[in-house]
Amino acid sequence: MNRRRSIKMDYESRLSRVREEMRKRGIGMMFLPFGANLWYLAGVRRQQAHMTDTNAYGDYICGAYIGTEGGLTLVAPRMGGAFYRQEADGKPWIDEVRIINESERPREVLVEVVKSFHLNGKGIMLDDRTWIQSGLEFEHIVPGTKVSLASEIVAPMRMVKDADEVKLMQKVGKITDDVYGEVLSFLRVGVMEYDVAHEIDRQFSKRGAEYTSFVTGVRFTRPGEGEQIAVRRATNRVLKKGDSVTFDFGACCNGYCSDFGRTAFVGEPPAEFRRIHDLVIEAQAAAIEAMVDGRITAAQLDREARGMIERAGYGEGFTHRLGHGIGVTVHEPPFLYPPDETTLVSGMTFTVEPSIRLRDSYSCRVEDVVMVTIKGGVPFSNFHKKLTVI
Amino acid sequence: MNRRRSIKMDYESRLSRVREEMRKRGIGMMFLPFGANLWYLAGVRRQQAHMTDTNAYGDYICGAYIGTEGGLTLVAPRMGGAFYRQEADGKPWIDEVRIINESERPREVLVEVVKSFHLNGKGIMLDDRTWIQSGLEFEHIVPGTKVSLASEIVAPMRMVKDADEVKLMQKVGKITDDVYGEVLSFLRVGVMEYDVAHEIDRQFSKRGAEYTSFVTGVRFTRPGEGEQIAVRRATNRVLKKGDSVTFDFGACCNGYCSDFGRTAFVGEPPAEFRRIHDLVIEAQAAAIEAMVDGRITAAQLDREARGMIERAGYGEGFTHRLGHGIGVTVHEPPFLYPPDETTLVSGMTFTVEPSIRLRDSYSCRVEDVVMVTIKGGVPFSNFHKKLTVI
Repeated sequence: MNRRRSIKMDYESRLSRVREEMRKRGIGMMFLPFGANLWYLAGVRRQQAHMTDTNAYGDYICGAYIGTEGGLTLVAPRMGGAFYRQEADGKPWIDEVRIINESERPREVLVEVVKSFHLNGKGIMLDDRTWIQSGLEFEHIVPGTKVSLASEIVAPMRMVKDADEVKLMQKVGKITDDVYGEVLSFLRVGVMEYDVAHEIDRQFSKRGAEYTSFVTGVRFTRPGEGEQIAVRRATNRVLKKGDSVTFDFGACCNGYCSDFGRTAFVGEPPAEFRRIHDLVIEAQAAAIEAMVDGRITAAQLDREARGMIERAGYGEGFTHRLGHGIGVTVHEPPFLYPPDETTLVSGMTFTVEPSIRLRDSYSCRVEDVVMVTIKGGVPFSNFHKKLTVI
Repeated sequence: MNRRRSIKMDYESRLSRVREEMRKRGIGMMFLPFGANLWYLAGVRRQQAHMTDTNAYGDYICGAYIGTEGGLTLVAPRMGGAFYRQEADGKPWIDEVRIINESERPREVLVEVVKSFHLNGKGIMLDDRTWIQSGLEFEHIVPGTKVSLASEIVAPMRMVKDADEVKLMQKVGKITDDVYGEVLSFLRVGVMEYDVAHEIDRQFSKRGAEYTSFVTGVRFTRPGEGEQIAVRRATNRVLKKGDSVTFDFGACCNGYCSDFGRTAFVGEPPAEFRRIHDLVIEAQAAAIEAMVDGRITAAQLDREARGMIERAGYGEGFTHRLGHGIGVTVHEPPFLYPPDETTLVSGMTFTVEPSIRLRDSYSCRVEDVVMVTIKGGVPFSNFHKKLTVI
């Protein structure tokens, strides 16, 4: 808690940038459900979501309503609303927390809130992840109003991290290194994938993580076991001599995400395994070196690392993008893949994660979060990259 | 895996019911992103979501497209698309898995798919949780088309569980009992909340759970520690003599959710604590008994249990609804609260979870999933309800 509050983000200036852009575009109101964009712009923390389920009464209109002047209005459900009252506390950029009681109709609360913005023909912007259930309500209340996506304004802002954000991303990178160090000592013949995955999750909790960035990935593989395409989550597969072990995990601490990968092997690895491990490390190193401010696009960086793996004859085994932007969410623009022509500039942060999966056989991967600078990429995680042999 | 496939849901008849309703309402196409409704209607499993982040290329148009005749079209991202190809395998009600490649524009894929339904002025239905980002694309492609929510058709179907679903809900109820039994033996002075929570999660994984229903709740409380409204997740609070311990957890196994609660106490509980524990158990028992087919509404049931707690003078400490529908999602309609006038009928399944939280002091709760029958409620979890004293 203290750690979280020790770094003060400049929410006021972020919000005034948003308002300026709204005015330029003729937007009278922006709606952001509780989530990443609202955390980024106003410091209102997110609670972990429960898959695609329904939740509190009136939840579909809950979130922040932002005008071109004045403070934010938060609308929150009665059940769980105390959390948002607490979040608003000490934040002068939030005017009001409007709680929806079960005795009210959510649509009437929405009418009341939207009215207070005096749209007069101005457009509204909705967070890209706003539910269509909410979208239809807005259309019903302000028919004919032009609706556009909040990401048009917020996504470019989030791409370049400021100094406060970089500190938090370094911090979660360090925590992730520490967790991996602990977990390696836990790895031995006979453990199951899910035991290792739960130990990673526990170690993150111990260090104050809010939640994991995604389902913790621990995979044991060996020749002849077939493709494991179905499930992300760890299974009850038992670790045996001759297995490769790949890790893909991260956590959100103080509102910022990590994403990390390494590879281990039980017993003496075959020569080809050492070769592909060296190859992914080299491809990653080359990509990190090329992450110089203004010098390369997202698509080109992907091409550079992928080319190295293809030329060595393992292109088919590298099945995903080279990486993705990361910050308040674990996957965010820009993306290191062919369709993304964004030029990399200082302060952008990406995962760099080449991998090779041999068909029906071993897997091998490395991943670090790396910031673009004028001198090339600077990683936020610093655990060594040598193949760990158990 | 085998267990999951051992019960064959009647997806064909669910889909034909949906198609019949679509025809009646003049709907030409329904879009369901990968999630609960699609799992329920067509047996396409869900992957666990990563909070509100962005993910694969073209993800916002991914999911199932359902017309009034013919099979489903699944649209899936290239990265991770193999999972959906596998899910479609052996399901004759799925015609095609259309993978979006990074060389294509998602909008063009959407145009191609929507065109194949020959809407000719018919309306479209979108899953309530469809992103507005997707909603705007649909409006762009078929301007002026009437858009409505898929829940109008699917939510009432999901409310009443059929025999196959009941079997799976009994199964996950039994697993949940077993996990709680294991975890009680783990509980002792000196453990931290998050250690207990992770042990619960690990025990679920061990039994094949796909994911937890929500963030596993383990809370240690005692007088004078203040309200803990902020976070759902377990903390590093250490268990001490004189603490109350409340549990709120569940998991999704074979696609169906559990949700469970019990209370323990370390050392000899004060008389008032025993009194409020008896009270929540009695309120729950009365509610369960009243869950008779056709006899009571959701709102009345809430009133009945709440009344007992209010009359004993603890109404202020019962801050949430009595319960919620549960099935393929952990929270789904109907809801046991004042605004819901749904009459309870056989095959509906609810959590029944009265609780009392004394201000700045102890907490006490019980929760089971219960099915409505002609003879009253039948619980799916059967762990005893006596206060566990450690």
